Amino acid sequence: MTGAGDTPKRTIWVDDDGRTVVVIDQTLLPHVFATEKLATLEDAAVAIETMVVRGAPLIGATAAYGMALGLAVDPSDEAVEGAVVRLLATRPTAVNLQWAIREMEDVVRPLPAHDRAQAAYAKAAEIADTDAAMCSAIGDHGLELIESLWEAKGQQGRIDVLTHCNAGWLATVEWGTATAPIYKAADAGIPVHVWVDETRPRNQGASLTAWELGQWGVPHTLIVDNAGGHLMQHGLVDLCIVGSDRTTASGDVGNKIGTYLKALAAKDNGIPFYAALPSSTIDWTIEDGIAEIPIERREPEEVTHITGQAPDGSLVQVRLSPSDTPAANDAFDVTPSRLVTGIITERGVAQADKESLASLFPDRTI
Amino acid sequence: MTGAGDTPKRTIWVDDDGRTVVVIDQTLLPHVFATEKLATLEDAAVAIETMVVRGAPLIGATAAYGMALGLAVDPSDEAVEGAVVRLLATRPTAVNLQWAIREMEDVVRPLPAHDRAQAAYAKAAEIADTDAAMCSAIGDHGLELIESLWEAKGQQGRIDVLTHCNAGWLATVEWGTATAPIYKAADAGIPVHVWVDETRPRNQGASLTAWELGQWGVPHTLIVDNAGGHLMQHGLVDLCIVGSDRTTASGDVGNKIGTYLKALAAKDNGIPFYAALPSSTIDWTIEDGIAEIPIERREPEEVTHITGQAPDGSLVQVRLSPSDTPAANDAFDVTPSRLVTGIITERGVAQADKESLASLFPDRTI
Repeated sequence: MTGAGDTPKRTIWVDDDGRTVVVIDQTLLPHVFATEKLATLEDAAVAIETMVVRGAPLIGATAAYGMALGLAVDPSDEAVEGAVVRLLATRPTAVNLQWAIREMEDVVRPLPAHDRAQAAYAKAAEIADTDAAMCSAIGDHGLELIESLWEAKGQQGRIDVLTHCNAGWLATVEWGTATAPIYKAADAGIPVHVWVDETRPRNQGASLTAWELGQWGVPHTLIVDNAGGHLMQHGLVDLCIVGSDRTTASGDVGNKIGTYLKALAAKDNGIPFYAALPSSTIDWTIEDGIAEIPIERREPEEVTHITGQAPDGSLVQVRLSPSDTPAANDAFDVTPSRLVTGIITERGVAQADKESLASLFPDRTI
Repeated sequence: MTGAGDTPKRTIWVDDDGRTVVVIDQTLLPHVFATEKLATLEDAAVAIETMVVRGAPLIGATAAYGMALGLAVDPSDEAVEGAVVRLLATRPTAVNLQWAIREMEDVVRPLPAHDRAQAAYAKAAEIADTDAAMCSAIGDHGLELIESLWEAKGQQGRIDVLTHCNAGWLATVEWGTATAPIYKAADAGIPVHVWVDETRPRNQGASLTAWELGQWGVPHTLIVDNAGGHLMQHGLVDLCIVGSDRTTASGDVGNKIGTYLKALAAKDNGIPFYAALPSSTIDWTIEDGIAEIPIERREPEEVTHITGQAPDGSLVQVRLSPSDTPAANDAFDVTPSRLVTGIITERGVAQADKESLASLFPDRTI
């Protein structure tokens, strides 16, 4: 349990009252570190919708605690149903959200109403702790890849990793997914340097990944989303690692918009491109990611405006385009499996194909 | 000659005094339309360096007028040499700048000092007018490509063009390069719609291209640089047209950082990808763009900070990243010719290879 004032490495915990859930308000980072208390189901739903919390695993954990918060007030069948509907509506692309809610339902529905709240808190805690353990395992498996690259370089220079968006500990409960191998490598003494895509429009790379890496002491350089291909052309990237919001059974990777462009560049330059993800984000029911992964369309204002810190320290939203310019804002894209070198999971590294993923998860496939 | 208050479609002209040069201050667009008077060589050099003017052709025209401004004060051989050195140092990547300065040198050096200023103004005007005519011709040739696509679609729906950065009339003297075919198509009644990459870090797409297209009445939608590949995957792009700051004799296209990523996506989705450029931006002396085109490295602050219009109407620069985050800012990348469908020039459309380009410009190749 980590609160404000410490150096946090966990993103969600239950407050001392044993009921209120506390999260980091990630909309204020990197300029302000503040926590937000979630007292109700609606608080949790709004925190997911407004991206106070974001990242597939953390969204799942927050939704799980949201169920618990709701059932603490009303544990009826109708309330369970209402909580499921409310939480499912918050972020349509995140399969992990759906998974966490189903896990919660499986635990609470069979129980008498008066036992549901306690069981829900216990299950939410289990989901959070399990996520932390999964991310640590992803880190261990990814570390082996980085160690191999470091050996192949004769332990000379450094290992340059490019990542997109924030699939760091801020996106999970602890460790992160794409960042877990990086943190494990840094902790193991490998000189790893990270190219951080700023990740327009919401700039999770510039605001969150840069902040995280700085907190951990990992050397990094912020770049615009346009720059990665150029760096790869010039031999300045050894490895790409990204997260995923939803991956198909065949290894198509749904992730933050722009991931596909980096995967194309990695392929064009012979650079390994990995997605690091807990198996809960694999959607075993679909195979054609481009056709079947629903893409969340967000507000145009996220493209036409941006928020940052003004010279006086205040956070100001500024407009970047003419006042009447229309904008489109699809939040995710899909990287076809043919561009993905491998999928780093909590059970090991699979090739991005149906057979390899299924052999790692024979119990999960349908 | 167009000044503030009109609807401008020309970017540089000589003021009524016959000596001062007037440009649009493009750093204030799209929020404020203002012109800037260049009274000296140093004014012109600073206008280029600080991107008050930008875009290869306009940089060339401004440098030409900068020579004239310098020679109006001091037409000595030493002053010619000093002007050349000062102007060449402003933007190292722009071959058009070098071309314009050489053209000016060829005119003024053989003349007696007292004739140089008048000849320089005349030559600068010729460079500007020639550029406008070349862009118009580029537009005519590109229009044929758009007409063919429109026929192939059975004249149904619309033609979706994706462009990156600003290769519009603001980047040239009139018409633009990448935008010229778009404007000609719109004027010809073809329903053309433009996906405008915002083009971080300096956001020339969001600020300049969106503004230009709006002024011209061409339908357009602003997108983040991450989005183009996703749109192409979903059949929402018929054609990409970009500009170029320097193109090799073999058709490698040096252009704003991020162009390479869009070309990769176009190739992956079978979408034609064209660079539209005046032949003055072709560097006939080099063939390997990735190895030989020098890439300007600009200030990290362009990545970590951005300027926009605050709710109170003021222009505010805000910081996007943690205060201690390092950033890298290479301004251009190189798209290999294998990804380029064709080069639209003032003489017609060439394939992106040495033979095809040389056959269009037998007089220029070396």
